[in-house]
Amino acid sequence: MTTLNSVEFNYIGIIHTPFTTLDDMPIQPGGASGVSGTLVLDPGLEEGLVDLDGFSHIYVIFHLHKTHPYRLTVTPFLDTNAHGLFATRAPSRPNPIGLSIVRLIAVNANILSIENVDMLDGTPVLDIKPYVPFFDEQKTVRIGWLTGLKDRAMTIRTDGRFK
Amino acid sequence: MTTLNSVEFNYIGIIHTPFTTLDDMPIQPGGASGVSGTLVLDPGLEEGLVDLDGFSHIYVIFHLHKTHPYRLTVTPFLDTNAHGLFATRAPSRPNPIGLSIVRLIAVNANILSIENVDMLDGTPVLDIKPYVPFFDEQKTVRIGWLTGLKDRAMTIRTDGRFK
Repeated sequence: MTTLNSVEFNYIGIIHTPFTTLDDMPIQPGGASGVSGTLVLDPGLEEGLVDLDGFSHIYVIFHLHKTHPYRLTVTPFLDTNAHGLFATRAPSRPNPIGLSIVRLIAVNANILSIENVDMLDGTPVLDIKPYVPFFDEQKTVRIGWLTGLKDRAMTIRTDGRFK
Repeated sequence: MTTLNSVEFNYIGIIHTPFTTLDDMPIQPGGASGVSGTLVLDPGLEEGLVDLDGFSHIYVIFHLHKTHPYRLTVTPFLDTNAHGLFATRAPSRPNPIGLSIVRLIAVNANILSIENVDMLDGTPVLDIKPYVPFFDEQKTVRIGWLTGLKDRAMTIRTDGRFK
């Protein structure tokens, strides 16, 4: 890469969840089904939430702010084999950006009540986007090493490898 | 927000697409069906791509680097009514982070051949994640102001409002 560069993003909000430590967290929203949290947006951005309550689900893009230095080969929770980092959702990445689809329960002023939260309490928010199936869902899909691992993904919790 | 803070991300790659200007671009991957591009990853990160080729689709998280200052109320392409910015996918956002699901055709060394690209040529990449339906698809979904607008979303192109 001849001209690598960088960008700085300001946090636009913070997420509160029941998960105050990196132990015993769900690793995906599917494993956090029904777990409630709140997303407190910077009050100065409240006007940007108008009509968001029409959507049942939103993407939350966030900073995985408690991760460790990344390794390019990782053994994820769901497998005993190593894989390339970008073939996993491991949180320690060159840019530790988290992406979760959560259920939007209510919007009150600058506070979003959300469900299916799989983030650590205090996680900084970078962006919110509406979840729109016809933009985002794909039909015929291959999922590589994750094939057959759905049930494990829905139940497994973090351990020492969440880093 | 009492303790807003920020984070700096280094670009990890660059996307090449046929779209060299902000005119006449598709506004979502669904409208870019079959359009080919390449994602050139920083060669130093190539090891992180191992096993990614098992996945048919990937999330690309990127910097919408050509956007204009944001406004909290916007009238999106797909509507004549104004909506809160966060209830839209408008590119000009407090943090201009783009999220697209593209089809992964092949991985050769540090170069990914991808399809359904809706990004501007030269777009900087922030992260790559595998697309996994059982992590990400939601069942009963409401989509607010976008209800009934699917056909328009698949065909519309950018105009002066892409900013």
